[in-house]
Amino acid sequence: MAESHPHAGETLSDSTVPKVVVSRLSLYLRELQRLQMDGQETISSGQLGALLGFSDAQVRKDLGFVGQFGYPGVGYRCDELVQAMRDILGTNQPWPVAMVGVGNLGLALLGYRGFGRQNFSIVAAFDADPAKVGQTIQGITVQPLDQLRATVQEKHVRLGMIVVPGSQAQEVAERLVAAGVEGVVNFAPVTLTLPPHVQVVGVDLAIELEQLSFAVTNKGTPLESRP
Amino acid sequence: MAESHPHAGETLSDSTVPKVVVSRLSLYLRELQRLQMDGQETISSGQLGALLGFSDAQVRKDLGFVGQFGYPGVGYRCDELVQAMRDILGTNQPWPVAMVGVGNLGLALLGYRGFGRQNFSIVAAFDADPAKVGQTIQGITVQPLDQLRATVQEKHVRLGMIVVPGSQAQEVAERLVAAGVEGVVNFAPVTLTLPPHVQVVGVDLAIELEQLSFAVTNKGTPLESRP
Repeated sequence: MAESHPHAGETLSDSTVPKVVVSRLSLYLRELQRLQMDGQETISSGQLGALLGFSDAQVRKDLGFVGQFGYPGVGYRCDELVQAMRDILGTNQPWPVAMVGVGNLGLALLGYRGFGRQNFSIVAAFDADPAKVGQTIQGITVQPLDQLRATVQEKHVRLGMIVVPGSQAQEVAERLVAAGVEGVVNFAPVTLTLPPHVQVVGVDLAIELEQLSFAVTNKGTPLESRP
Repeated sequence: MAESHPHAGETLSDSTVPKVVVSRLSLYLRELQRLQMDGQETISSGQLGALLGFSDAQVRKDLGFVGQFGYPGVGYRCDELVQAMRDILGTNQPWPVAMVGVGNLGLALLGYRGFGRQNFSIVAAFDADPAKVGQTIQGITVQPLDQLRATVQEKHVRLGMIVVPGSQAQEVAERLVAAGVEGVVNFAPVTLTLPPHVQVVGVDLAIELEQLSFAVTNKGTPLESRP
């Protein structure tokens, strides 16, 4: 599991990208997108590393994994790096997402601007509560769960977002999988048991606080200021 | 910025922990806490790595950084690892947190169970909206912003959580810093400019979706199932 083994002929062609590198690609991508907004066209590995607290060598190795080696005396072109990262992360295409659970967190996620910027779009929302069904939030009308399968197929949804209480998460995950979803992001604080072909990413909001308590406890170790 | 340089005599004594390792400590800690709940007392580096998709060698190197080297024929004791991680992350002590912004996301965070488990506790909540001030949510009564400084000092708050719209985030961050907060988690989609002694961690909820789109695009690269 330490190495990724994409099928030949897919986006990664004949190279493999270690999972720890993949988790850094999102961070590089954010910085590069910010630089592009500021009008910067090229960057050195040292500059990119300094923005994220990574060493020059680490950045060059990571970018080598994604097939980018820079130009002598110029560095890397931001647009080429962004394109390469998006190709590998799969976000060079739009991803319609179905959300289940329209509580406080669900409402917040429906209004979250950061998804669209990375090509993710919540196209459908579901809730078991009849009082919520039929409400329209951010242009999305909340549907009952028994419409999940039809909507997932109609809107070509491949990803699901589970934002229900822990006690309902496993059942909701199974319904999403039965409807044809290939991967889920789980905000519920439980471990899901799903078939191996389904990808699962769990969200633990306490991790950011832990990184902060480390930084405050060990002053002199500034974390990068991310948005 | 690639290496941490804690003050001598602090939790890390004479060792230094690279920042990329720190970001993995939270992941190790979660798995170890889950194993403990299941009654498991010891674990090998290979087993721990398999749970997270890291190599045996990577795990041994990371745990060496935090001063843990395991026992021959036994592996690592889960309780010792958890204690060591918490010592370094700073979560061996309780952290009172002040939250500013009681919108949908703020309401969700007030009810989030995962914070308490890691020794974080939201002890005060603030909002600029007079209609929200005075409401009691999860036992916390929303206060006006002009009470921020007094409450931060009275409750010994060192960390702040910014959950306001982007347009208000910088001002709120400055008020938190003026009140004496040493670090902030920023959920607003803007980059904050704060004095260098203040630690900032930004939250980007699209990162989890990107890791998922990578996994779905590159099948055969299962991500670990995290809670």
